Amino acid sequence: MAATKIEIRRGTYYDSITLMQLQAELMQLPGISNAGVMLATDANKELLKEQGLLSAEAQECSGSDLIISIQGDNKAATETALGKVDTLLSRRRSHDEQDYLPKSLEAAVKMLPEAQWVLVSVPGNYAASVAKEGLRHGKNIFLYSDNVSLEDEVALKKDASKKGLLVMGPDCGTAIINEVGLGFANKVRRGPIGLIGASGTGLQQVTARIHQLGSGITHAIGTGGRDLSTSVGGITALQALDLLRRDSETQVMVLISKPADSKVVSRLLQRAREAGKHVVINLLGHPAMQLEKNTNLHFASSLDAAAELAVKLVNTPTTSARETAAREMSPSGQKYLRGLFSGGTLAYETLLILQDYLPNLYSNIPLKKEQALANPLVSHKHTILDLGEDEFTVGRPHPMLDNTLRLQRLAKEASDPEVAIILLDVVLGYGAHPDPASELAPALSNAISSAQKNGRNLEVIVTVVGTDEDPQDLKAQIKKFKTAGARVETSSREAALYVGQRLQSQEKATELTAVDLKVLQQPLQAINVGLASFSESLRQQGATVIHVDWRPPAGGNEKLISILERMKKS
Amino acid sequence: MAATKIEIRRGTYYDSITLMQLQAELMQLPGISNAGVMLATDANKELLKEQGLLSAEAQECSGSDLIISIQGDNKAATETALGKVDTLLSRRRSHDEQDYLPKSLEAAVKMLPEAQWVLVSVPGNYAASVAKEGLRHGKNIFLYSDNVSLEDEVALKKDASKKGLLVMGPDCGTAIINEVGLGFANKVRRGPIGLIGASGTGLQQVTARIHQLGSGITHAIGTGGRDLSTSVGGITALQALDLLRRDSETQVMVLISKPADSKVVSRLLQRAREAGKHVVINLLGHPAMQLEKNTNLHFASSLDAAAELAVKLVNTPTTSARETAAREMSPSGQKYLRGLFSGGTLAYETLLILQDYLPNLYSNIPLKKEQALANPLVSHKHTILDLGEDEFTVGRPHPMLDNTLRLQRLAKEASDPEVAIILLDVVLGYGAHPDPASELAPALSNAISSAQKNGRNLEVIVTVVGTDEDPQDLKAQIKKFKTAGARVETSSREAALYVGQRLQSQEKATELTAVDLKVLQQPLQAINVGLASFSESLRQQGATVIHVDWRPPAGGNEKLISILERMKKS
Repeated sequence: MAATKIEIRRGTYYDSITLMQLQAELMQLPGISNAGVMLATDANKELLKEQGLLSAEAQECSGSDLIISIQGDNKAATETALGKVDTLLSRRRSHDEQDYLPKSLEAAVKMLPEAQWVLVSVPGNYAASVAKEGLRHGKNIFLYSDNVSLEDEVALKKDASKKGLLVMGPDCGTAIINEVGLGFANKVRRGPIGLIGASGTGLQQVTARIHQLGSGITHAIGTGGRDLSTSVGGITALQALDLLRRDSETQVMVLISKPADSKVVSRLLQRAREAGKHVVINLLGHPAMQLEKNTNLHFASSLDAAAELAVKLVNTPTTSARETAAREMSPSGQKYLRGLFSGGTLAYETLLILQDYLPNLYSNIPLKKEQALANPLVSHKHTILDLGEDEFTVGRPHPMLDNTLRLQRLAKEASDPEVAIILLDVVLGYGAHPDPASELAPALSNAISSAQKNGRNLEVIVTVVGTDEDPQDLKAQIKKFKTAGARVETSSREAALYVGQRLQSQEKATELTAVDLKVLQQPLQAINVGLASFSESLRQQGATVIHVDWRPPAGGNEKLISILERMKKS
Repeated sequence: MAATKIEIRRGTYYDSITLMQLQAELMQLPGISNAGVMLATDANKELLKEQGLLSAEAQECSGSDLIISIQGDNKAATETALGKVDTLLSRRRSHDEQDYLPKSLEAAVKMLPEAQWVLVSVPGNYAASVAKEGLRHGKNIFLYSDNVSLEDEVALKKDASKKGLLVMGPDCGTAIINEVGLGFANKVRRGPIGLIGASGTGLQQVTARIHQLGSGITHAIGTGGRDLSTSVGGITALQALDLLRRDSETQVMVLISKPADSKVVSRLLQRAREAGKHVVINLLGHPAMQLEKNTNLHFASSLDAAAELAVKLVNTPTTSARETAAREMSPSGQKYLRGLFSGGTLAYETLLILQDYLPNLYSNIPLKKEQALANPLVSHKHTILDLGEDEFTVGRPHPMLDNTLRLQRLAKEASDPEVAIILLDVVLGYGAHPDPASELAPALSNAISSAQKNGRNLEVIVTVVGTDEDPQDLKAQIKKFKTAGARVETSSREAALYVGQRLQSQEKATELTAVDLKVLQQPLQAINVGLASFSESLRQQGATVIHVDWRPPAGGNEKLISILERMKKS
């Protein structure tokens, strides 16, 4: 008669892979039909329950308790299987090639003081504390664990960035450092391409394809999926960009990520533009596009395309043309753009392009929530206004016809001492104002000269959209704007690119202490806290590793743990 | 002594451009320093107040009252100016070349029954009613007015689409029909390129650039900025796509828009793929990208680039290669994809690509809110699951190591009679499962054969990410999956493109009555209700137009208007 036998071991810890393997081995035993070996988390209890592997007693267990549940043909078979659990577990232990297993990170550091890395793969609720201890010992962290809070991630990375250390993760699935794969990693040839990935399988797909294409990689630095969020601000990605920039073996860089915050992306792209090396970019869901000519940035539309592009760029010279930005801005605290648009789509396109250059971009027609202007009547930092939006046009003609609103706003913006650039669009054609330059050009000329009187250098850019057959006389309009002292473009793209290049060098860089290149260039030595299989994998790849026989502190008792944590802090 | 004179004319209507011109003319009169001539909307009253042009009495006026406010050097000057108001207004009227001005749309229709278009530019709160009347008379509508409610837009467009009529707008700034510009439009050469724009100045920038590049356009159809929203569903854009597809003079199409709903975009792209002509696409903020080879769709990264690309594509043959889709799907109601991913980024990339093919796409890692799966444990229509998300991994190894969850979910999805395709990723390398195919391939083979027993043709696609040096033996893994009956890809992009092409033909098209091509091909004749300057502009371009001497119904009295509206409906 079929039987189910359930054993509970309270406060017993094995890592999840060890338990998975034990479960698989139990199911191979004679007369056994099913087995479940799991820590008693809610999710696991649900899973066991579905399979009839949960008892009332097991239902009451907590996440620090181990449930061993075995189903078989009869009572004897299940009891025999249960009797073999300890032998199977100790057989797994004997696989370790390490004579002595330190019980703490501290002890492991004493055994291998030259280790540059601590690998952390303990359950999420313990991971931040282990990582913090690793940083305290001056080690870089590979934080595989997931379910780590955002607050902990921010605190860890801020601490690390001050110390010149890296925190890859949390939830960092993949990295390759100096030919050694950490976590999940494909075996790939060494070569001239260095990668940064806020995405694990993304790094794997790209590194594997680079290898298949016959090229190879220097390093692949993982950042964890939340690194490019507003809260974290891309700390690890910025550190990694700086490391690979300085690493002489890395010729071409690849930057890939899951959906990211647009402000963080703009900061990252700014650094990438200044890297002096080709950077291939694949930011999932971010509408970044190839707009600039002669740039070292290359946007790829898929992971595969990123690999192909990177391989193609090896040994091609980099041209970092940024002449427009070379001209000095006024030193008087002028730094912001004010774009006063009559055309909604021209305003949108400008926003779309500038968001890759300027993190502090605001608008009354934001592409993303964080760009929303609190009050359309008051500009804030870099501002793009669509004056054709309903809020401005009730009871009055469209700004393409009626310049009143634009002239008022222009006067206001031009007198703001923080404003460096004024950007306007002028759309000609049927239906539009018969001679917009007659009203706008004198106002622009006034704005420029009164700024000059106040010691400021106000730059004005006008995008004129029109044809030589339009009723307004395109050439005459352009001439009036030029005479007034404005730079004239006929494409909103070109105007936006010019402004972006002009202003981005004014943006403050995030301050980070440089990470020592040794972390990439010396043979990898690591301390592993968590999954035993990671220690095995590192040894298999020829790296030096000390595995720590980690157990949840205080037997997994949450109350005791928090008391211990507080004692450590004081 | 400076004086301000304010006159109020209750229930008096002139269009906003006429008032703007009157205001400008008053300011030219001797001794006059400032003037404001505006309907007493809240925004306008605020503007007048700022300039000291508002009295207590004027403050109490409503939007149907006209305020004429004049500031001058002395009382005599302001009174003289005020005395000239009626002369100035009647002089403007005499500019009209039309002998008789009908007072209603109905009367105008009798005067010009062959008119295909009604142009509506009355204030927003009256616009829907005028447009509705135009549709009732069987006319296509150019709806320039903004401040029209979304509900009204949906109702108008649904009505029009049943009748085979177009509603361009509301807030449609620009269109060019058969060489006549409506609203704001540049004068451009006739040529082989037809445009569709959910964006006014976008159409102007692209048509102007096409002209500058020496080419020209057939028609530019505006849709209004909300046409590609979820509520409207792209009705006008779909009609326009169909019209330009059938228009033999249009060789290349260009589709541009402001930020749009992703489901609507996928429906539109599906129709565009089937158009049999080149379609250049610039969807602002939508990360649509050039992924397919040999396709008639071409993604441009800016308005300027869209124009350049369109001109380049003229006279180049279209290759609409969709062989993969040619294979018939099982006819048994199978239609959905279930993607079971271990790699988060591979899942993201798949979502990103498929959202341009499949409107009903859901995920536990949605790129957009509307794609969110209500319950990750239950798939819905086309579903992409990332099984490596925290919600699935608490207390258990990552799905790249532990296939348990994936095998369970696979069995569930494969037995769902609506499922047509199962898509998996298998990521090899250090740290991953030592032989994933040993567990997954038999399960896939089972799934395929049990579907077959139930008369279903279940298709399985496996993306294998790995290198020839990985510990798992890449070739052997691929062979096992192929033997099990799966299609194997080594790139998530290729797998997603295959699935997209396979499934998109199953998607139901929005049902629309075709619009008669005559609307584009016959010389333009129109009835204009609203801005007098639009009538002038149409005449200037050689079109036949009847201007309606429109006034707000019931003298602008809201209560009376709503009673009249109800009487019309019954």
